[in-house]
Amino acid sequence: MTYCVGIKINAGLVFLSDSRTNAGVDHISTFRKMIVYERPDERFMVLLSAGNLSISQSVREMLQVEELREHEDAPPMTIWNARSMFDAARVLGSAVRHVYERDGESLKQAGLDFNVSFIFGGQVKGEAMRLFMVYAAGNFIEATSETPYFQVGESKYGKPVLDRVLAPDTPLDAAAKCALVSMDSTMKSNLSVGLPLDLVVYEADALKSDRVICIDGDNPYYRMLHSSWGKKLREAFDSLEDPAWDGSEAPSPLRVQAARHAPIRKIANPNERLI
Amino acid sequence: MTYCVGIKINAGLVFLSDSRTNAGVDHISTFRKMIVYERPDERFMVLLSAGNLSISQSVREMLQVEELREHEDAPPMTIWNARSMFDAARVLGSAVRHVYERDGESLKQAGLDFNVSFIFGGQVKGEAMRLFMVYAAGNFIEATSETPYFQVGESKYGKPVLDRVLAPDTPLDAAAKCALVSMDSTMKSNLSVGLPLDLVVYEADALKSDRVICIDGDNPYYRMLHSSWGKKLREAFDSLEDPAWDGSEAPSPLRVQAARHAPIRKIANPNERLI
Repeated sequence: MTYCVGIKINAGLVFLSDSRTNAGVDHISTFRKMIVYERPDERFMVLLSAGNLSISQSVREMLQVEELREHEDAPPMTIWNARSMFDAARVLGSAVRHVYERDGESLKQAGLDFNVSFIFGGQVKGEAMRLFMVYAAGNFIEATSETPYFQVGESKYGKPVLDRVLAPDTPLDAAAKCALVSMDSTMKSNLSVGLPLDLVVYEADALKSDRVICIDGDNPYYRMLHSSWGKKLREAFDSLEDPAWDGSEAPSPLRVQAARHAPIRKIANPNERLI
Repeated sequence: MTYCVGIKINAGLVFLSDSRTNAGVDHISTFRKMIVYERPDERFMVLLSAGNLSISQSVREMLQVEELREHEDAPPMTIWNARSMFDAARVLGSAVRHVYERDGESLKQAGLDFNVSFIFGGQVKGEAMRLFMVYAAGNFIEATSETPYFQVGESKYGKPVLDRVLAPDTPLDAAAKCALVSMDSTMKSNLSVGLPLDLVVYEADALKSDRVICIDGDNPYYRMLHSSWGKKLREAFDSLEDPAWDGSEAPSPLRVQAARHAPIRKIANPNERLI
């Protein structure tokens, strides 16, 4: 599997991907899932991919040459000349559709879904930053301030911390930290997501980024975060009041039966009816 | 969906279930998923169910009358006379198989999987506590000290905290708190899991429990836990060092390229080759 997350906040964009792929648990490999497209001071885009590796690699290859035409006489549009991220996402969607036309039928005959999804975001000069999630049908959705992030792959383990932390005014470094904590929780509970990680942090309107880093188990910050987060989470957990069953003077007693609901069904013999 | 968790530690057992069911997001109902079987000082068992509600309700009904015979002349074994939790789990497995025989073919014709799973645990006098996960085929696995919990339903959101906190020597109240935190994280990120919650805490060798409680949004302990956990998690997150990109004197610098891995692929023009 895979876990990738893309975040759009006022201060910038964060992209983070793992690099594990597997065809069964006995066939695990490392493939990097992030590509950065950068023409400094003009456009900066990041692509994260999840799903069938043969499809996502083909789409990435195709994207280099993909041209979209509005009509026959229109000049070809590529990710390198698209005037907006929306148009660039359309070019990506078109590349996905071309791969589907080429491989979809054969995959179906082999009993395989055309399973692929992308997070694609960045900024084109003259426009605000934008973040998209592109589906296997080449259609896409865009992140808004209410939903400032997209995930692809093994997304559930790492979702609660994103939901609790991210808001449009989250500082950029905190958003990067949040993505790393989300990834760390995912790797803790799911072997199909693994190091090294690829991280890009993009500052709004910079139209380039040198905060582009491959992180493995030796990275000092990641090691600190991995051990500190586990410890701090544990401390936070320990500092939560334990449930008090017996002392009636507990400030937050647990022993209060929900008034609007029946007690839990307790059965004492085989002849009792359930309802 | 559903989220249920059962925990077995040295000090006892914890069972927690939500009560939301849905057939599509526009058909959400409340169904309780926990049943307690108790004959004080002789046997104490708890059943949690997930999956297709018609199947799990049928299995619960059937379990009341299910009899398993080793051979034709053997006396019938039920959950009420089984001499071990293992045998009781076999009776449950047999009930699942009877429901499959009755409904499996019709469900298949309707395009539905025979989708059901159970957490079943407790203690029979003369034996240690045991905890099982019973599958749709009636087969089952047992929790050990390395894996002291089972989850059914929407299990991924709430798994990281269980993985970080639970160990055989975890105190019983801490395990109950951990189950509630795991449930709270799940409800935060997934609408298909919802209040009220059913909680049972069983102390080893008690062979009965009065720590059996239905918890809704008015429960003082749950309200405290819900608000404090979010706040403490946020504090723990904020107290983690932010990634330092620029200051070389940061104690845990993030800007260290993984030595064994290539930098992230940065593409600057359409003619560049990917590999």
